[in-house]
Amino acid sequence: MRFAGMNITFRHFPFNYFLDSMEQLGINKIELWAGEPHIYVYRNAIESIRTIKKEIKSRNMEIVCYTPEQCVYPFNLAALDPQWRKSSIDYFVENIYAALELETRMVLITSGIGDFSVSLGESWKYTSDSIYQLSKVAEKEGLAFRGEIEGFVDEICQKGYKNIFLIGAGGTIAMMYPYEYILKSNSTIDVHAEIAAEFMVMNHKHFSKDSVCIFTSVSGTTKETLAAAEYCKEKGATTIALVAEPNTPLTKMVDYCITTGSEKHSFDTFYLLLYMVIFRFMYNRDEFPQYEQFTKEVNLLPRAILNAVKSFDQKAEEFAIKHKDTDYHMMVGSGNLWGNTYCYAMCVLEEMQWIHAKSIHAAEFFHGTLELVVEDTSVILLKGEDETRPLMDRVERFVENITKNVTIIDTKDFEMEGISEEFRKHFAVSINWSVLSRISVYLERERNHSLELRRYYRQMEY
Amino acid sequence: MRFAGMNITFRHFPFNYFLDSMEQLGINKIELWAGEPHIYVYRNAIESIRTIKKEIKSRNMEIVCYTPEQCVYPFNLAALDPQWRKSSIDYFVENIYAALELETRMVLITSGIGDFSVSLGESWKYTSDSIYQLSKVAEKEGLAFRGEIEGFVDEICQKGYKNIFLIGAGGTIAMMYPYEYILKSNSTIDVHAEIAAEFMVMNHKHFSKDSVCIFTSVSGTTKETLAAAEYCKEKGATTIALVAEPNTPLTKMVDYCITTGSEKHSFDTFYLLLYMVIFRFMYNRDEFPQYEQFTKEVNLLPRAILNAVKSFDQKAEEFAIKHKDTDYHMMVGSGNLWGNTYCYAMCVLEEMQWIHAKSIHAAEFFHGTLELVVEDTSVILLKGEDETRPLMDRVERFVENITKNVTIIDTKDFEMEGISEEFRKHFAVSINWSVLSRISVYLERERNHSLELRRYYRQMEY
Repeated sequence: MRFAGMNITFRHFPFNYFLDSMEQLGINKIELWAGEPHIYVYRNAIESIRTIKKEIKSRNMEIVCYTPEQCVYPFNLAALDPQWRKSSIDYFVENIYAALELETRMVLITSGIGDFSVSLGESWKYTSDSIYQLSKVAEKEGLAFRGEIEGFVDEICQKGYKNIFLIGAGGTIAMMYPYEYILKSNSTIDVHAEIAAEFMVMNHKHFSKDSVCIFTSVSGTTKETLAAAEYCKEKGATTIALVAEPNTPLTKMVDYCITTGSEKHSFDTFYLLLYMVIFRFMYNRDEFPQYEQFTKEVNLLPRAILNAVKSFDQKAEEFAIKHKDTDYHMMVGSGNLWGNTYCYAMCVLEEMQWIHAKSIHAAEFFHGTLELVVEDTSVILLKGEDETRPLMDRVERFVENITKNVTIIDTKDFEMEGISEEFRKHFAVSINWSVLSRISVYLERERNHSLELRRYYRQMEY
Repeated sequence: MRFAGMNITFRHFPFNYFLDSMEQLGINKIELWAGEPHIYVYRNAIESIRTIKKEIKSRNMEIVCYTPEQCVYPFNLAALDPQWRKSSIDYFVENIYAALELETRMVLITSGIGDFSVSLGESWKYTSDSIYQLSKVAEKEGLAFRGEIEGFVDEICQKGYKNIFLIGAGGTIAMMYPYEYILKSNSTIDVHAEIAAEFMVMNHKHFSKDSVCIFTSVSGTTKETLAAAEYCKEKGATTIALVAEPNTPLTKMVDYCITTGSEKHSFDTFYLLLYMVIFRFMYNRDEFPQYEQFTKEVNLLPRAILNAVKSFDQKAEEFAIKHKDTDYHMMVGSGNLWGNTYCYAMCVLEEMQWIHAKSIHAAEFFHGTLELVVEDTSVILLKGEDETRPLMDRVERFVENITKNVTIIDTKDFEMEGISEEFRKHFAVSINWSVLSRISVYLERERNHSLELRRYYRQMEY
């Protein structure tokens, strides 16, 4: 059990007296009640935040939850009067930003109280609409998922774990490979990326009740993922899932679940969340002190992705036009982009477009597949920005001399506004995947071959 | 430093008195001097061996070296008289078999003394010829490599190590994947299979001076392997190499090297040696008590391979005839056969025959590549006997319904005489690789395309 001290009962004392008392009690986690005279967002907010931050930091404390006063102050998310409701929402938005500034990952919000002259149903509509608007702000600022993610990752780390298993099949195991690579090259955490169906039968000797198993699934119903999650749970391991659809068998089965909501770009969202999950594990092991800055930049990523996709759009279209009849591609990648390379070849070109595609790791390219390259072979190079880039450069130099059909997709071509130089290599995974998706869209159009079309998958039993 | 007690100085006491003394001294490793009256191979050998074995076992001791008397008894490997030399060789052969029976992995043999009437050079020829003949016997009985392998593996284990890195490129990393799989599913030893060129740049955080790094190379000159071995050595890690050619840069660089001698089937030999290396590590961690029996069966493997190759030969030829113009194959494998699947597609079909080939893991097959299977697609299934076989069965059921060009290469079809049921799954790796090689030979003939032909590899700089 963990305790946090709250300052509401100290509202007739100065804030520092409250902190002194917590120190004496050995409590270093604080639930910050935001109300007069300690901090009120409509009076000297900036100064208050600055002072509180300094005090908290100097005492090695942490604000685990930010709770704006909402019972006695004149704000009510369920109010019948639309103007009052509007000003109440504004008040909470203001507080969300204060919480962000205080590096807190949780904000407590209650429903408000419906007007007694209207039905419960009507008030419910008002309050749920208000909370929806707040959640959109929180989501945009990364607070929503960040709070949840840090909450469960910290809990797991505190409890202790032995290793991390990244489990999936097809696209969802490919999506894990970047994080396996990132962990291997940045952390001493013991990590294993395993294909679900194989994992189930292989008696993996490193897997135990002390393992943390991470899954992703758009539908939350993928058979093999479900079976693997059930297997892990039965063995007493800790299970985490990122799922797009709410209320699925997978969301219900795992110990910790983030439901992202159903949308077109679930994979892009999964990437963002996986950054937060994986780097939080590293942070908790004192292997990633830049975590705070990194997480802020994760929130800038959606915009960077949007800009990258825009700037790549024309190139994607040109590729699709040029290659609409090409029946074979080689795709080469390395390091944290190997997963995307493998996935795009198998799950997009092969599965969704029925085009033969060989994915080959840059470090392996010169040990076999190179012999197939002739003057018109299509070779697609996925270049990222991690330590393995020189391996890609070498492949590039070679193929540029042999074939005229080289396509280079290089994350260095994208600006990634606001992203620090040191983090670009990590975010390259996400950027690369997003721009590849544009190629898919244009291939679908140019080849008149729907991305949804399947000969067998979910068309027949096997 | 490790001590072993030797019984030669106790030759005027009964053997058991010697063992009692060793026990009192706390010495449990014995160098067994084989001479009268303790044990002499030409008098009551079988009874002596039986007694010694029982005594050694009941005292929890171990014979670490077997040293037949060779200074004062009338045997001389360097003798000028060919008959005396012959009887001396016979004497040592007899002793080698005694050593095998005593489960000792080392036999001490000295050069003998040349006749003073002939030149040093001539005597050298005699002695080296004698020792060569003995080494052939030892090799046939698996004693030669076994002794060496157990020697260095035990030394490493005693010194302590943190994890094992299996490093290679192309065929030599593919060859490691089976052992990575075997370790993962049978042992808690921390294992990492890494592609050499990527490993060099990725700052693998699990790699340290406490890592054991294993390499294989036919030529001993493969650039990337050499560079990786040098890198590992510089970082203070322990390095082991299996190399076909003697006196190569790689043999000289590593801490422990087994030179197998140059021959056509180096890969087959590497597989055998890797079994011994990997399972010895497991044995030393108390995770493979069947080691003794297993190693005996490794020695039966060459014959099992030969028989498998013979019985597969016709099928290999038929395949090559049928598929001489096939320009694309899918190869599916799983578990400890995934490495062979990946390797045969890339290093044989693509590199040596310039045929497009996609290797796909059985656990991944249904997540993309299946959509490309149509009624005439060539699908090659490599079926082994480990836990993942049901995954292959599933793929088999599916493709049998879709295409008429399914080729199943199943180790269950081969007898593997003398191999225990429980070890078949491990040896399937070796058997599978050997029979695949027959396909290569016939493809070469049918397609009139030399297996040595390269467009680029070692034809140009890149």
